[in-house]
Amino acid sequence: MIRFNCDYSEGAHPRILEKLAQTNFEQTGGYGNDPFCRQAAELIKQQCKAPQAEVHFLCGGTQANLIVLAACLRPYQSVISPVSGHINVHEAGAIEATGHHVETLPETDGKITADQIARVCKAHWEDENPEFSPQPKTVYLSFPTEYGTLYTKEELQAIRRVCDDNNLFLFIDGARLGYGLTAPGNDITLADLAALCDVFYIGGTKIGALLGEAVVITNPKLQKDFRYFMKQRGGILAKGRLLGIQFSTLFEDGLYLELAKHANDMAALIKKACQEAGFVFLCDSSTNQQFPILPNDILAELEQTYVFSHIKSIDHKHTAIRICTSWATRPEDVEQLTAELVKLSKGKNATHRVSFIKQ
Amino acid sequence: MIRFNCDYSEGAHPRILEKLAQTNFEQTGGYGNDPFCRQAAELIKQQCKAPQAEVHFLCGGTQANLIVLAACLRPYQSVISPVSGHINVHEAGAIEATGHHVETLPETDGKITADQIARVCKAHWEDENPEFSPQPKTVYLSFPTEYGTLYTKEELQAIRRVCDDNNLFLFIDGARLGYGLTAPGNDITLADLAALCDVFYIGGTKIGALLGEAVVITNPKLQKDFRYFMKQRGGILAKGRLLGIQFSTLFEDGLYLELAKHANDMAALIKKACQEAGFVFLCDSSTNQQFPILPNDILAELEQTYVFSHIKSIDHKHTAIRICTSWATRPEDVEQLTAELVKLSKGKNATHRVSFIKQ
Amino acid sequence: MIRFNCDYSEGAHPRILEKLAQTNFEQTGGYGNDPFCRQAAELIKQQCKAPQAEVHFLCGGTQANLIVLAACLRPYQSVISPVSGHINVHEAGAIEATGHHVETLPETDGKITADQIARVCKAHWEDENPEFSPQPKTVYLSFPTEYGTLYTKEELQAIRRVCDDNNLFLFIDGARLGYGLTAPGNDITLADLAALCDVFYIGGTKIGALLGEAVVITNPKLQKDFRYFMKQRGGILAKGRLLGIQFSTLFEDGLYLELAKHANDMAALIKKACQEAGFVFLCDSSTNQQFPILPNDILAELEQTYVFSHIKSIDHKHTAIRICTSWATRPEDVEQLTAELVKLSKGKNATHRVSFIKQ
Amino acid sequence: MIRFNCDYSEGAHPRILEKLAQTNFEQTGGYGNDPFCRQAAELIKQQCKAPQAEVHFLCGGTQANLIVLAACLRPYQSVISPVSGHINVHEAGAIEATGHHVETLPETDGKITADQIARVCKAHWEDENPEFSPQPKTVYLSFPTEYGTLYTKEELQAIRRVCDDNNLFLFIDGARLGYGLTAPGNDITLADLAALCDVFYIGGTKIGALLGEAVVITNPKLQKDFRYFMKQRGGILAKGRLLGIQFSTLFEDGLYLELAKHANDMAALIKKACQEAGFVFLCDSSTNQQFPILPNDILAELEQTYVFSHIKSIDHKHTAIRICTSWATRPEDVEQLTAELVKLSKGKNATHRVSFIKQ
Repeated sequence: MIRFNCDYSEGAHPRILEKLAQTNFEQTGGYGNDPFCRQAAELIKQQCKAPQAEVHFLCGGTQANLIVLAACLRPYQSVISPVSGHINVHEAGAIEATGHHVETLPETDGKITADQIARVCKAHWEDENPEFSPQPKTVYLSFPTEYGTLYTKEELQAIRRVCDDNNLFLFIDGARLGYGLTAPGNDITLADLAALCDVFYIGGTKIGALLGEAVVITNPKLQKDFRYFMKQRGGILAKGRLLGIQFSTLFEDGLYLELAKHANDMAALIKKACQEAGFVFLCDSSTNQQFPILPNDILAELEQTYVFSHIKSIDHKHTAIRICTSWATRPEDVEQLTAELVKLSKGKNATHRVSFIKQ
Repeated sequence: MIRFNCDYSEGAHPRILEKLAQTNFEQTGGYGNDPFCRQAAELIKQQCKAPQAEVHFLCGGTQANLIVLAACLRPYQSVISPVSGHINVHEAGAIEATGHHVETLPETDGKITADQIARVCKAHWEDENPEFSPQPKTVYLSFPTEYGTLYTKEELQAIRRVCDDNNLFLFIDGARLGYGLTAPGNDITLADLAALCDVFYIGGTKIGALLGEAVVITNPKLQKDFRYFMKQRGGILAKGRLLGIQFSTLFEDGLYLELAKHANDMAALIKKACQEAGFVFLCDSSTNQQFPILPNDILAELEQTYVFSHIKSIDHKHTAIRICTSWATRPEDVEQLTAELVKLSKGKNATHRVSFIKQ
Repeated sequence: MIRFNCDYSEGAHPRILEKLAQTNFEQTGGYGNDPFCRQAAELIKQQCKAPQAEVHFLCGGTQANLIVLAACLRPYQSVISPVSGHINVHEAGAIEATGHHVETLPETDGKITADQIARVCKAHWEDENPEFSPQPKTVYLSFPTEYGTLYTKEELQAIRRVCDDNNLFLFIDGARLGYGLTAPGNDITLADLAALCDVFYIGGTKIGALLGEAVVITNPKLQKDFRYFMKQRGGILAKGRLLGIQFSTLFEDGLYLELAKHANDMAALIKKACQEAGFVFLCDSSTNQQFPILPNDILAELEQTYVFSHIKSIDHKHTAIRICTSWATRPEDVEQLTAELVKLSKGKNATHRVSFIKQ
Repeated sequence: MIRFNCDYSEGAHPRILEKLAQTNFEQTGGYGNDPFCRQAAELIKQQCKAPQAEVHFLCGGTQANLIVLAACLRPYQSVISPVSGHINVHEAGAIEATGHHVETLPETDGKITADQIARVCKAHWEDENPEFSPQPKTVYLSFPTEYGTLYTKEELQAIRRVCDDNNLFLFIDGARLGYGLTAPGNDITLADLAALCDVFYIGGTKIGALLGEAVVITNPKLQKDFRYFMKQRGGILAKGRLLGIQFSTLFEDGLYLELAKHANDMAALIKKACQEAGFVFLCDSSTNQQFPILPNDILAELEQTYVFSHIKSIDHKHTAIRICTSWATRPEDVEQLTAELVKLSKGKNATHRVSFIKQ
């Protein structure tokens, strides 16, 4: 079987493994106090054009989200998130276990707007007893979103203004950040994110590393004592170098963006084949995740060879799936898949379009 | 500088890196649902002679401790720990952040006794209002302890009986388990631990892995829903294979114990040299951590070349240090260190013995 | 000003104050270990026909909700609640601060259905990785709801069956329970609640007491160690007798239901007047809370004399308000209000009906 | 039986009950937004000479402690407490359930010193990795202590200086504050406490109220958003007036101190009788709690008539007890008790002194 169901089916990019082997016997301090972590942090700060930022390395997305939000929020404060936000749907209540309410907003293609956020804040502060509901304090977004879509710079700037007006932190989950930065049409850079966010992270796990997320904190209020939060939640590795080595490899000569771009290119080929086959999509993604809606019979045939994620049943004849590419996706596999897609759809005499309303 | 300050100064045993490279492009499921994790779990269960056990892989000791204790305790229940227990002194309040009181007991060389535990339980249940103090529910021990010392089988059996009598779980932190299992004089096996504990873990980070702790759960009550706890605390890696590959390498042909034994052997040479030099020890350890008390002038000379951990100032002329060996400790470095130890101590005309009382 | 905005504007029913004065110098044990608490618990168990139940007294609704849910849930488990449930909208994130996700369902007139609950459970357990989202474990309902509406016995029985099928606890918030039990058309009794719920509470604060909620626990699993939860969350009063005296007064000869019926009768008069005036309601309530939609000009006139709660602006000419009666509502005040309502509405030439859609 | 085991065996001072009855039908706003709470807060601020302070009313000591400490601490911060502090021994782990480590210090007669606190802070900040242990942020003291003893003004000033030097909040638990303020030899006033502490509370439950603690917050950092903490932990009563009425009664004409002084006077008579009888004390208290060590045979005879609290067994012939007086203690009961104490001790031919070392 060939896996297209996620972007973490393989190990790490070979250069990472080589670097691990090369440096294996160098003795370093523990807990992230080592030259590799320092170098990786330095590279990231440079590329973010944010010399005052602090960079910390964590193991995974849920860990990063819960630690960052613990730092952003007092116990009575909430985080605003799209209802489809990873923290709301895929982390087993990690944020609530940290004590915080997740204030969800309806999303459009995984995104929320500055206006929606402003309305939540207005409603809170105009209440007769604001203290009877959690106080909004942080906005959580994903870039790209869980649907592979992207905020424009203008949208993020508008959200930043609402955050400033309402004394909110802006936190961007970049578990798949590279895929967004290298997507066609994207107008956001690392430096933009550093300028717009109080804190965000650069995902390594899903873009070529064995594991690891690099948390970039630009707001000094959140920098203070951040390592206590990391330690208390089990987020400091004794051999922190493992993360430093990976991120310095990914960032020393553009490997990170290169890997992401490869995945996007592969996804674009699949997207094009789906379009040619007449399939519609749950939403229009330009990144490595594509969400076409397939007739169940075609899907069944493809699943003899390929693994996809099922997202939801659209009607009794159609299913929305996720097709995911990665740094490791082989062009020959994509070629084969797209050929089959086109071939199978041609065999069908009717249109595969469905009129569906996202619930 | 040559580091003897901890057992996590290098990367991983080369065979682990090789296995990572060999398997790098095999596609697997995520989140620990992969053949490597299954194989590693199987090997561990076999070596524990515990076919009904469940084995889960986590990233580090603090993470393992807080997740296991979240599973062991209801909100009003406490964990009994030696005052020197890692959860009490070195985890930034991780257990309290999970909501639980740590009930500390005075330790002797890092160890507590069955009698002490029994007295805590008796005092709780005989109180007029037991519900006014946290209810003891779990015993936390380290094997080896933070002082490198070991419980005997008889001691653990006595503790198990007290646990049975008082409806307590027994949880053993094995961050350095291999060093204990292979220590001279030790009479505990993996199978003993599986039979005596409700849950324990086998530390990889400090014995040759890049990172990783294998949690072995023998009590079905704790097996139930354990992965929810893991996920909620950020303890499930997307590329769980990273842990499975390492533990299968460590356990498929005895590498784990071999690495531990090497470190113990190296430590024994250092211990012998210290004894010959006339130094006393904070406590008598047979594992990879040695706690000699050195005259400050000798210590200063050694620290031109070697890095040690300072444990505490004994008096204005003596300091207790920790000397730590590992799988990666080179015999030639030990030879050089022991030679210097003996040489430096001979240059001194007075005894280096101190009469000290552990506070 | 005459207050119709809530049911806690006055002190306590005079018989409660008399009983406090009469018993004031009797010495009793503390922390709820006193004859008054025992008597109150006994009366409640009898009237619930639940001799095996345990009854505990707490200070208020938020406290009761967070303590009961702490007892019902493990850290990774969630409580299902209507989106309008008090725990979701009016408790400052108390449940999340206790570590738990509130799984909200769309409500109709404040109510949710057995089918909705079943679908949540099905979706959870059919997920490929159930452990990636909080596990549903308890259903939270209010009786009456926050909109003053009532579940029928048939509806509760259906919910009970879904709870049994899915291993869920059923917890009913009875902060205004008496108003429901004595409402016209209600077919639920205290004994029904005790038979259907695992735990529920009988609100005193809003029905004649100074403060106090009587938690009735019928499920032995939740009875175990419940006082630890109470103590740990600050829910045990040193002078627990204060609660015991009040509940024994309310339950020794039917005072509780008598007070509730009075409030319902007063509310029915107001409801009738609103109907005669041609006003529509947010929902059809037969209890002490009425939610009419008033033209803003009429509302402004009434608010010269009366205090109401504003619920929401319907359009730029109409506002939904809450009119609330209580044990202390004076018939002459209701007579005056209803007369004014009718008079003011007659002065208007147009209909006051609005077509509105609940958001 | 005549109870001398605690200071909460009766209801409330009759003037409180009268005031409740007089004001019963006055309609007020809920949740502490009422004239009674405002008046009580005003009286307390005046008597504290702290016009900028904020005063909030809570139900009990555990609730006050956990809410205040939630406001004082970030998740990784700890509270320093004497090992005998109420939060450490008598609150079922309430502080840990709020997520915080309690850093305990050995106490002398229930008290800790400025030096001890300074040493804890020094040790923390001088550690190589401070973030590996909880960061000290608040000092918790009781005045009087759990042993009835008092800090002098000089001692509190020294502690304040250490708090300033180390950026710590000073929080004083005044569950029995009045007994301290009116004790012979005490040199602390309400105004001193307001000047020295960041936050403290004035206990009503144990000095004449049905329930209630008045939290006085002088530090603006802690004032901000305090009501969110109260609401989230179930600490806002719908009928907040119940607390306002009681505290305005206690503070409008000196009743609070008068009641406390009565109890102290009664305790002094008992202390004197114990001394005359030759009994030693666990510690020297000048407040309403006395801790004499009685021969078991005398104790057994007294316990035919009186109820005391047993504190601990000193040896097989002696027991330390707590004798507690209150606002409601009747002089005739004290007279009878003291007479019996003296009489019983005269009947014994040997000394009752014991040489005991507090553990």
